[in-house]
Amino acid sequence: MTQQRTASLTDLPGEFSFIRRCFAGLAGPAALDLRDDAALFTPPQGRELVMAADAMVENVHFLSSDPPDTIGGKLLRCNLSDLAAMGARPEGWLLTLARPPHITDAWFEAFSRGLKADQERFGLTLMGGDTTSTKGPLVLSLTIIGSVIPGQAIQRRGAQAGDGLWVTGTIGDGALGLQALLGKLADPDGVLARRYHTPEPRIGLPLYGLASAAMDVSDGLVQDAGHLARENGLTVTIRAADVPLSHAARATGQTWRETCLTGGDDYEILMAIPPEHEPALLKSGCVQTPHGPVTLTRIGAFSAPDHGQSGVQVIDEEGVPVAFSRGGWSHL
Amino acid sequence: MTQQRTASLTDLPGEFSFIRRCFAGLAGPAALDLRDDAALFTPPQGRELVMAADAMVENVHFLSSDPPDTIGGKLLRCNLSDLAAMGARPEGWLLTLARPPHITDAWFEAFSRGLKADQERFGLTLMGGDTTSTKGPLVLSLTIIGSVIPGQAIQRRGAQAGDGLWVTGTIGDGALGLQALLGKLADPDGVLARRYHTPEPRIGLPLYGLASAAMDVSDGLVQDAGHLARENGLTVTIRAADVPLSHAARATGQTWRETCLTGGDDYEILMAIPPEHEPALLKSGCVQTPHGPVTLTRIGAFSAPDHGQSGVQVIDEEGVPVAFSRGGWSHL
Repeated sequence: MTQQRTASLTDLPGEFSFIRRCFAGLAGPAALDLRDDAALFTPPQGRELVMAADAMVENVHFLSSDPPDTIGGKLLRCNLSDLAAMGARPEGWLLTLARPPHITDAWFEAFSRGLKADQERFGLTLMGGDTTSTKGPLVLSLTIIGSVIPGQAIQRRGAQAGDGLWVTGTIGDGALGLQALLGKLADPDGVLARRYHTPEPRIGLPLYGLASAAMDVSDGLVQDAGHLARENGLTVTIRAADVPLSHAARATGQTWRETCLTGGDDYEILMAIPPEHEPALLKSGCVQTPHGPVTLTRIGAFSAPDHGQSGVQVIDEEGVPVAFSRGGWSHL
Repeated sequence: MTQQRTASLTDLPGEFSFIRRCFAGLAGPAALDLRDDAALFTPPQGRELVMAADAMVENVHFLSSDPPDTIGGKLLRCNLSDLAAMGARPEGWLLTLARPPHITDAWFEAFSRGLKADQERFGLTLMGGDTTSTKGPLVLSLTIIGSVIPGQAIQRRGAQAGDGLWVTGTIGDGALGLQALLGKLADPDGVLARRYHTPEPRIGLPLYGLASAAMDVSDGLVQDAGHLARENGLTVTIRAADVPLSHAARATGQTWRETCLTGGDDYEILMAIPPEHEPALLKSGCVQTPHGPVTLTRIGAFSAPDHGQSGVQVIDEEGVPVAFSRGGWSHL
């Protein structure tokens, strides 16, 4: 022990002032001002909790050049999409980050602003987290907590042969947006890039009593539909021509159709809907949510597995199977 | 769309078989077999939830050469220590990992074995998570969920002037263990290295009705005692000679005393204990937990802030203030 600077021990170390500056403004009551070892959360009475965790890595899930406020917002929105897929209401979130030296405090202040706007919009608050340093890329990991009335969570299992395959919103804009940001595609109005940066989680989608199974589309429509089919031991057939595309996606032309169907980053909800609920939906074409009406489109149907093999097939307007050069994203 | 390999779409992508192989054996009922977008957890009736998240980065928090089973176990144990500090019971955990190419499947299988042994020992199961790739170091992020009887969580705030400062177990072994692993220190029996690899979270420590405030020691005794003092607007004085050291730590000699007091990686619990509870504790020197008896040592006391400045001071046997070359770890 040397005789030096006791005074420094009463100063706040850098990590703590960083947390206070960038994250204290996001903290809700469970967070105990982000000063404790853990958050203290009273679960809403008579509800089950729904929990998911997603990590995002610099230059894998976002570009270093992306606006930092959209990165914070996107991380939260991707996790919100997992809650939406089960019909859950958001309650709170925890964040860990591994911070490399090239990410500045100003970057984190903008990152935090994006998170603040989105947590206010979707009605949840920060509960806790951890910050650490790394010599590698920025790694962000978000755990989200939601809740649902017991027994009303919609899962991936539950689809039956004969159920229709439905999807919210439009497919492919996120994947095209990434290509636009990489300079491979024109995006005159920036619509596609916006959809890549700011997906719209379908929070409040009234799945209970409507869908027999659901999941969110994050790794590409075709791959994710395959997961949904396999979880239920079924085949699902997607009619490519029925997949809803935005005006901006249509304008990119036929060459980009495969990207739309397999590209990922949609964060729309894929549902199995029993036949008895389909006529009303086919008529209205949408459902109401607290965040506005959401269009629903029937893009195919579930059937008994083809030769005992469950999975996905895509057909064209003549019913001829379509194949793809790749199925979707696998993160490993 | 090209005419190629529809068959591949019915195969399990690599990410999914990896999760099944390495993590399905850890999953509890809330995890829905790790096949869904989120976990579904029924909170234990009449209890509050306690939640914490911690990240560990390769070559910051662990060495690439550390046995992978101890890395999994340590990550879980560090998070369990956050629950222990509030007097909470473990319920479940979520994990995200950013995986670089140099970390093999065999590595993750051993990592998972360490987690399995420890989750069984401490009575919790895996609820969910996410895996992704990175070109940087391995980053692991764990969110832990615990529960406590409402109103019985012990927080950092609550200490009063006159309370004693107490600590569980022994201090410094983890920090010395790291130095031993770095080859800077002899550790003939490997006791110190074991304490670095496998900290002992003080789950089940009966804090309620005993401590007025508590936290776990992760960033060094002196720095963390400073946090506890500042959170309460008090000064805390540590008597260096009273800090409990293991035989192995004592054997390293006086040169390593500063490392013990400031090094971190202890995962012992630091408590403020009101004077009325102290005589019984001074007599018994330990408390019972479901994982065996835990020694408690009085190492100092809280007092009104010195010249209005709250914080920590360390004194020697003559009451003379001792200073250190550094206060503790800050992760940023």
